Amino acid sequence: MAERSRGWARAVRGLLLDVSGVLYDSGAGGGVPIAGSAEAVRRIKASGLKLQLCTNETQATREDFVRKLRAMGFDISVAQVTAPAPAACRLLRERGLRPHLLVHDGLVPEFAEIDKTNPNCVVLGDAAENFTYANLNEAFRLLIGMEKPVLISLGKGRYYKETDGLKLDVGAYMKALEYACDIQAEVVGKPAKRFFESALAELGVPPEQAIMIGDDIVSDVGGAQQCGMRALQVRTGKYRPSDENHPEVKPDAYVNNLAEAVDIILQEL
Amino acid sequence: MAERSRGWARAVRGLLLDVSGVLYDSGAGGGVPIAGSAEAVRRIKASGLKLQLCTNETQATREDFVRKLRAMGFDISVAQVTAPAPAACRLLRERGLRPHLLVHDGLVPEFAEIDKTNPNCVVLGDAAENFTYANLNEAFRLLIGMEKPVLISLGKGRYYKETDGLKLDVGAYMKALEYACDIQAEVVGKPAKRFFESALAELGVPPEQAIMIGDDIVSDVGGAQQCGMRALQVRTGKYRPSDENHPEVKPDAYVNNLAEAVDIILQEL
Repeated sequence: MAERSRGWARAVRGLLLDVSGVLYDSGAGGGVPIAGSAEAVRRIKASGLKLQLCTNETQATREDFVRKLRAMGFDISVAQVTAPAPAACRLLRERGLRPHLLVHDGLVPEFAEIDKTNPNCVVLGDAAENFTYANLNEAFRLLIGMEKPVLISLGKGRYYKETDGLKLDVGAYMKALEYACDIQAEVVGKPAKRFFESALAELGVPPEQAIMIGDDIVSDVGGAQQCGMRALQVRTGKYRPSDENHPEVKPDAYVNNLAEAVDIILQEL
Repeated sequence: MAERSRGWARAVRGLLLDVSGVLYDSGAGGGVPIAGSAEAVRRIKASGLKLQLCTNETQATREDFVRKLRAMGFDISVAQVTAPAPAACRLLRERGLRPHLLVHDGLVPEFAEIDKTNPNCVVLGDAAENFTYANLNEAFRLLIGMEKPVLISLGKGRYYKETDGLKLDVGAYMKALEYACDIQAEVVGKPAKRFFESALAELGVPPEQAIMIGDDIVSDVGGAQQCGMRALQVRTGKYRPSDENHPEVKPDAYVNNLAEAVDIILQEL
């Protein structure tokens, strides 16, 4: 399909890449690179195209996340990662919000500079083992005690797969707190438009000259298209054949993997 | 208000009573009776009116629940309690469902006679301390692995109050699993119509001759009225003055407490 019509690959100046499912598959010991992806990242950089990673990762700081990617062979710097926690910190500062954090231990350092005394909002991430009955009740009590409860959710994923099985993602716990408090959370991360816009700003390229490449039909492809970007779905990671019949979202093209996407884009340069 | 128009109290043959917030307030050591309620129950029984308790209690078996009520001075038998777990057991048997239980330890004996091997549904109750990350992931994995996931929720309350603070109720966890699996739970308990209908069957009185008395404007009053019963809201338990401006539900009358309701009903007999 990608062979037939390559109009989508023209006039590109920058690429936004999802990470899990595009660069690597999460799994034992942190994950394994997807074949050809590290080489594809090197070719993007050598071509002069701008590159930014756009991830909903919230179990580690960007520093730790980049360390893991570099160990897998990806030539990436911290400034090239757009992630929900730094975006949430900007939002907290802009609005004078002091968060109570219900997040993974690995993410806490991202909020080191943020005033967390006398909280007036709750920030929810993929807290994993920190999703205890006591912690959920604590976050709930803080919210229900606010005159106007503010819940900021770092993503709204339903679930994800780890080597020991499927895990409920942050979106499920977001829904629990939304229902209990009769409120709507503010989502920071894909597919929020504002999050893509800050990734584009960091990329330094307007949406019509950028392509998003991801494995999630709704969060990556649909979200990027809403911002005026073109978007490709790779057939790696959480891609399922049924995605190709999605009732609402249609990617600009399908590619088998990141390497194939880069092949086509570089040919059109 | 109750003084002005007592038409609602005429032609009554049976009463359905909510328990927590009507008979007693939950709190330290299991709870304390609401003033006048034990005497009101005695007067109902002496009058010849039929009486059935209709509760969403799912932290204890009916036997343990009745033991607690009797210790507080309420002359109640197990057969006079309609509760979600026995209703769920009937539903499981009718449909050949084998549950995985995510419920409070105190409720497990209610399911002693039910085949729980090779589960083909999940039954969710107010599991309290059993709402762990591991247990929620386990319930989720079972559901998402089913061809057609069946989630049966014993109630759908948002939260409740205990002496050490507010707690998320079963409804919040139901919403988390609904979202993660993209399904709708089946609710057994108030305000489900079928649950009120089985309470009426146990009461042995048709809906137009029955009155529901509860403290929850939506679950007790709204649910009972949907079944053709009259319904009173007491100004005890979780009652809040703002309930009297509820946009959708209007009780047939307000009473200050169960004792006042019984005064009026017995005068009209």
